[in-house]
Amino acid sequence: MADSLDELRDAIDAFVAERDWAQFHTPKNLAMGVAIEAAELMEHFLWTEAAEPATPDPRKKEEIANEIGDVLIYLVRLGRVLDIDTVAAARDKLLINRDKYPVEKAKGTAKKYLDLE
Amino acid sequence: MADSLDELRDAIDAFVAERDWAQFHTPKNLAMGVAIEAAELMEHFLWTEAAEPATPDPRKKEEIANEIGDVLIYLVRLGRVLDIDTVAAARDKLLINRDKYPVEKAKGTAKKYLDLE
Amino acid sequence: MADSLDELRDAIDAFVAERDWAQFHTPKNLAMGVAIEAAELMEHFLWTEAAEPATPDPRKKEEIANEIGDVLIYLVRLGRVLDIDTVAAARDKLLINRDKYPVEKAKGTAKKYLDLE
Amino acid sequence: MADSLDELRDAIDAFVAERDWAQFHTPKNLAMGVAIEAAELMEHFLWTEAAEPATPDPRKKEEIANEIGDVLIYLVRLGRVLDIDTVAAARDKLLINRDKYPVEKAKGTAKKYLDLE
Repeated sequence: MADSLDELRDAIDAFVAERDWAQFHTPKNLAMGVAIEAAELMEHFLWTEAAEPATPDPRKKEEIANEIGDVLIYLVRLGRVLDIDTVAAARDKLLINRDKYPVEKAKGTAKKYLDLE
Repeated sequence: MADSLDELRDAIDAFVAERDWAQFHTPKNLAMGVAIEAAELMEHFLWTEAAEPATPDPRKKEEIANEIGDVLIYLVRLGRVLDIDTVAAARDKLLINRDKYPVEKAKGTAKKYLDLE
Repeated sequence: MADSLDELRDAIDAFVAERDWAQFHTPKNLAMGVAIEAAELMEHFLWTEAAEPATPDPRKKEEIANEIGDVLIYLVRLGRVLDIDTVAAARDKLLINRDKYPVEKAKGTAKKYLDLE
Repeated sequence: MADSLDELRDAIDAFVAERDWAQFHTPKNLAMGVAIEAAELMEHFLWTEAAEPATPDPRKKEEIANEIGDVLIYLVRLGRVLDIDTVAAARDKLLINRDKYPVEKAKGTAKKYLDLE
């Protein structure tokens, strides 16, 4: 069975090719796209309380899902253009984070790693 | 074979559980995390020319990959907390975009869909 | 007495001219700069509680002030390049907001104006 | 004559007080507001060429001015809540930047200061 993210990457490639949009997809523009969509995603949580229920109502949840989709589309496309495997990059970063935030020091604290002693 | 993004989601879950960080992972905070990492990713392209080669040098490429990884980690984690399937969200959004940007109107133009006539 | 923002704008202009940086200051790059610095500013509040005291400790306050400064510098510079009066733009937007959020409807609610009835 | 930014700060204060919105204006939320508006501002330049004329057409220019206004409103409000003088912060940061980017090293180059030798 094909990997879900590989399929997504190929579907985005086809979408872009059909519209002749590769010419606009410089790394710079795609990185801007990721950031713009990330802000639109975040806007859904601007006035929410931290204590608010994690499960929003269905209509809002669908809007949030759409924004998550937008961020992922730009991110995967950026990875494609730069020849970076998006999932492998996250996996590698998680390994780095294991070293930066060792369990015995980071447990139960949200401190930035430079502040961990 | 397990799906790469399912595996990533589970690895992030384990990472968070080991550190007892779920308490900090409100949707609001995670959405902020996505946006902050997206900006750090974008910073790599702040002063680059649009015409710059898409393939950066190896050291820079690794830094960019790390930032892509950070964005994906927060994004997948946010999807997890909200019970949203990240890849399915992107696939659904791509279908919406097919309607918003029909090939015959969108081909070769970067106009926002509201401006397409 | 000179206006504080006019003085700031002129000081930034001089700073840029001395370094021959106007060539990099396209509206696109400056808008990216605003967004990148805004994210760095926001990062200071990523893990804070909403209920946290509004007055951070002096060291943290100085770091936050520096980030606020960065955002304002890019914003004023962008206004300069586009020939937009930054403060007048904010004043005009405040008038628009008066219409979008009439007191009798918006009082005590953080709802987005489209949701106000 | 009153300073333009002091006047803006007071006008925002009055706007907020009339709507009883101070309860929502935590530093965290206001910092998010700055970042969200900064991304909306940036969106206007997503598909523009670096070489594009700096002066957009009047309708687009007004939209951009509105977004610049939004960023400044949130930024000034954040400064107010944190008791940080926004313009002084920018002036101080400009002094720091003078040291980080000495003219003889930074002239004509957009390199990040850590890369300057």
